[in-house]
Amino acid sequence: MEPLNMTSVPDIAVIGLGLIGGSLAIRLREKGLVGRIIGVDASESHAQMALERGLVDCIASMDDAIAQTDVIILATPVDVLRSSLPIVLDQVDHQVVIDLGSTKADLTAIVAGHPRRGRYVATHPMWGTEYSGPTAAVSGAFEGKTVIMCDVTDSDPDALEWTRRMYDAIGMRISEMDAEAHDIHAAYVSHISHITSFALANTVLEKEREDEAIFGMASAGFESTVRLAKSNADMWVPIFRQNRENVLDVINEHIAQLRKFKSCLEKENWEYLHELIRDANRIRRIIK
Amino acid sequence: MEPLNMTSVPDIAVIGLGLIGGSLAIRLREKGLVGRIIGVDASESHAQMALERGLVDCIASMDDAIAQTDVIILATPVDVLRSSLPIVLDQVDHQVVIDLGSTKADLTAIVAGHPRRGRYVATHPMWGTEYSGPTAAVSGAFEGKTVIMCDVTDSDPDALEWTRRMYDAIGMRISEMDAEAHDIHAAYVSHISHITSFALANTVLEKEREDEAIFGMASAGFESTVRLAKSNADMWVPIFRQNRENVLDVINEHIAQLRKFKSCLEKENWEYLHELIRDANRIRRIIK
Repeated sequence: MEPLNMTSVPDIAVIGLGLIGGSLAIRLREKGLVGRIIGVDASESHAQMALERGLVDCIASMDDAIAQTDVIILATPVDVLRSSLPIVLDQVDHQVVIDLGSTKADLTAIVAGHPRRGRYVATHPMWGTEYSGPTAAVSGAFEGKTVIMCDVTDSDPDALEWTRRMYDAIGMRISEMDAEAHDIHAAYVSHISHITSFALANTVLEKEREDEAIFGMASAGFESTVRLAKSNADMWVPIFRQNRENVLDVINEHIAQLRKFKSCLEKENWEYLHELIRDANRIRRIIK
Repeated sequence: MEPLNMTSVPDIAVIGLGLIGGSLAIRLREKGLVGRIIGVDASESHAQMALERGLVDCIASMDDAIAQTDVIILATPVDVLRSSLPIVLDQVDHQVVIDLGSTKADLTAIVAGHPRRGRYVATHPMWGTEYSGPTAAVSGAFEGKTVIMCDVTDSDPDALEWTRRMYDAIGMRISEMDAEAHDIHAAYVSHISHITSFALANTVLEKEREDEAIFGMASAGFESTVRLAKSNADMWVPIFRQNRENVLDVINEHIAQLRKFKSCLEKENWEYLHELIRDANRIRRIIK
């Protein structure tokens, strides 16, 4: 097993040319961190679009892409990662394999006993938008955001080091934790936001059947809370599925919190309602 | 009762020099729509701040401000409006009185039989931010947003006309409906967003007691859904109080929608979860 030459500018494969894979390809090129970028995508039209937008230099099959590159970046939905990560690891020797998925415990468990486990680095860059596909990929993504790297002691030192340098070079803050802790935290600060936003959209769309006029009134506040409801089902169902227990815990907690507001209104307990809002205001410490 | 001269640039009073009143004062001045702006505020320090920021030309008592001006704009929290609107109407003859409150049914009911009811125009400009006070007032507010004008046939034609021209001149789209319809719609497209955001903040802050590290991970999506949780309790408790029944209806509907997501996860019904998300995606029609 040859260690990757850290001073080189490696050719890389990006598997999954959507919002995340596409934006990372743009970013790695902006920073001059890579040589050729070979793209792989199950969708012919997405692959073509990625090529036309210049996200990648050429399109290849997964096998060919792995054979020709030193770094393989997996940016597919998490259900696809589940099946493709072991297959990719079967084919690598010296390469670094990095996934960008939103769940980590399920995936790391699947490859726990794999003879090439060390070549794999489990990461989750905490950046995204509500759009998807290669046309959604943007320049300047990831900057100033946090990337979580999981179970780092299970990765080979050279693979870990290259991955750290890559994230550092694209302007991300690196945080390390185990895969289980990641999944709990992600349920709180990302997954539940999507659930509430989907549910809020359905609440209002249900009403709209009765009255189309309502939407002229949609305020900036409404747009902000409901924005994530535009997110792609093919991406999010597998995330909720893989992080099912943690997301269920947080939904339960969130419904309990909503019930407190409901109870205040029912009982006309305006003092406690004031207190609940003052509690919520403490979020100012967290988001500027 | 003298009709207001529509070609004049009237002196105006702004009662309540916070985010909304302050931003409207800035906007009216930007557009050259008014002469002197006399400010009124229960808080000495807010009044002073508004003067220092140049939001108003001078500070006066409510009585003095009403006596010296042709247009009186009420921009206080809705509980204060409840008590101050009848008092203001007692003192006007020719002036136009416009309120900017987020609820309308309660307020219009209170002054329904008032001998000067015609001088009052009930409005709700659908613009705001999560910040409050005179320092939160900004230039360029309201532009391109919708303002709801309620029960317009209860207002004198000249008062209505001046108000319409004012909102048109500051770039707002005018929509008319009765006060009850406004309050139902506002519950769906504004008030519930604040409830979900407050509840989401409390959900996550509850967790944070156990683990401070969680917040490095807060993503842009989380920030978007939780942003409104920074909103001011003194403004929002009276809104929820005055719009209690409608807000309760929407909270119940929202909890029911959340339970559908919960049920999908519990029963591992991934097809129905996919369908719920696809339903929510239809919000793309509404928000761009």
